[in-house]
Amino acid sequence: MSLVIVGTIAFDAIKTPFGETDKIVGGAATFAGLAASFLYDNVKLISVIGEDFGDNIAILNRRHIDTTGVEVIRGGQTFFWSGKYHNDMNSRDTLATDLNVLADFDPKIPVSYQDCDYLLLGNLTPQVQIDTLDRLHNKPKLVVLDTMNYWMNTALDDLKTVLKRVDVLTINDAEARQLSREYSLVKAADRILEMGPRYLIIKKGEHGALLFGEGQVFSAPALPLAEVFDPTGAGDAFAGGFAGYLARVKTVNFSNMKNAVIYGSAMASFCVERFGTQRLETLTYEEITLRIQQFIALSRFEISE
Amino acid sequence: MSLVIVGTIAFDAIKTPFGETDKIVGGAATFAGLAASFLYDNVKLISVIGEDFGDNIAILNRRHIDTTGVEVIRGGQTFFWSGKYHNDMNSRDTLATDLNVLADFDPKIPVSYQDCDYLLLGNLTPQVQIDTLDRLHNKPKLVVLDTMNYWMNTALDDLKTVLKRVDVLTINDAEARQLSREYSLVKAADRILEMGPRYLIIKKGEHGALLFGEGQVFSAPALPLAEVFDPTGAGDAFAGGFAGYLARVKTVNFSNMKNAVIYGSAMASFCVERFGTQRLETLTYEEITLRIQQFIALSRFEISE
Repeated sequence: MSLVIVGTIAFDAIKTPFGETDKIVGGAATFAGLAASFLYDNVKLISVIGEDFGDNIAILNRRHIDTTGVEVIRGGQTFFWSGKYHNDMNSRDTLATDLNVLADFDPKIPVSYQDCDYLLLGNLTPQVQIDTLDRLHNKPKLVVLDTMNYWMNTALDDLKTVLKRVDVLTINDAEARQLSREYSLVKAADRILEMGPRYLIIKKGEHGALLFGEGQVFSAPALPLAEVFDPTGAGDAFAGGFAGYLARVKTVNFSNMKNAVIYGSAMASFCVERFGTQRLETLTYEEITLRIQQFIALSRFEISE
Repeated sequence: MSLVIVGTIAFDAIKTPFGETDKIVGGAATFAGLAASFLYDNVKLISVIGEDFGDNIAILNRRHIDTTGVEVIRGGQTFFWSGKYHNDMNSRDTLATDLNVLADFDPKIPVSYQDCDYLLLGNLTPQVQIDTLDRLHNKPKLVVLDTMNYWMNTALDDLKTVLKRVDVLTINDAEARQLSREYSLVKAADRILEMGPRYLIIKKGEHGALLFGEGQVFSAPALPLAEVFDPTGAGDAFAGGFAGYLARVKTVNFSNMKNAVIYGSAMASFCVERFGTQRLETLTYEEITLRIQQFIALSRFEISE
């Protein structure tokens, strides 16, 4: 039994109002894997890196993440992304996207990964997400898919194909509106759930997240933060924390899905406190427990009448 | 013991993507008073209207709202506002603002209103809010102030003066940022609480509301709605529901403030379902109870470990 995460591993160079970084480790699979590793002890990654990635893989292995499925391309360069966040931290400009070895990514599934019962398809080309599903011998118990507006603009047909095969979709509010062509998020959720997923999570950044499914809706708060240091990877950390929690509790129902959204939100709230993976690398389980208590205090009210 | 509400009573003409109205009854005191009247049975209004308002005052009296303090100006015309909402319902253009009798509004407090222990200063010129406080013989137990960016732009000094004398301020997120000159809402709340109020409510429309005070923070969800028919008065209905609940439970503490935010949010969610005051006029207490249950279901999660 394992949680398999497919996604990018990258070098990022980031500018925020608080400073800037040289090449640091990033990528959807990295953030999701680190986040998941605090909640579940059998996390396995599928990705591709260049030889230049070198010892950085230790960031993952130190968290006991299985990287057998991370292919290293001899003489290749790792995917590189560079971006600059504006003062409001809600918008950013991409300064560079060098696909490098990601351009030919052909996901290979080690035999030892065929025990996968929870699968997180991180934000990636929909075709790679489809290939991964095709190459698993058994349909996982739960498939979670993360995607973004870029794939809606460039690979909508493939995206719609893979949506038919997943259980949970996570996107942000603007993407939900784009995908559904509905402004109301309630109507958007209805349309998107008709496209395949049984559950939809709409991420709203500083406004929290909405979970739709089983004819119910859940509104998760975001932790109000004095400072967002670097938003990079927050959505991936959310997805990793979400999938990691579900893999641990094993039962998929709306009640556990709500808790998983809270755990995902907690992991995202840590992620943005430092540049890149810094905060997730040094996190402790005790800190997570305390933060979950903060989420409870933040949203709990008692009306008795 | 009473809840006194000071604010505008108006005629509104509204265009939304769903239709448009001729002159219908509106105004901050109207929406707030109607909302409060479902939660507390001794609601008294202070406002000014023209002779043209006529029998419309019955909309308030039918809800047993005391309108002794609503001055009728002989031959005067009632304040008129006309606006058009855009497709997203989050932005609007003001088409007309005819102050009419509101231009010379000098709030008069009937002797029978001097039992006021809860005071809601609805969105109005800060000078009128100050005059009202000056003319009450006793300081109320709780003073709630609603305001908007217009007064920050045109009467900031007066607004800062009245802020020193209130317990609760309700504004939206853009206004909180403008007033505090801080982007982070956590920092904005710190700055604003230094200006006088003990509690701050930041209204975020479809994203819910944040309550700050006593070193704590509470995040209230908004009810996800398939359709917002007419947003006019939602903020006023929120303030009225909030103050009405607190007047009823009588004890001001963070726990009751949280519940009051939920009741305010529920009243706002009804308000937007129809044009103007239509929904609040026909509402029943049973419907409110059911909606509160919806808010509980929407935000409740159980993490046990």
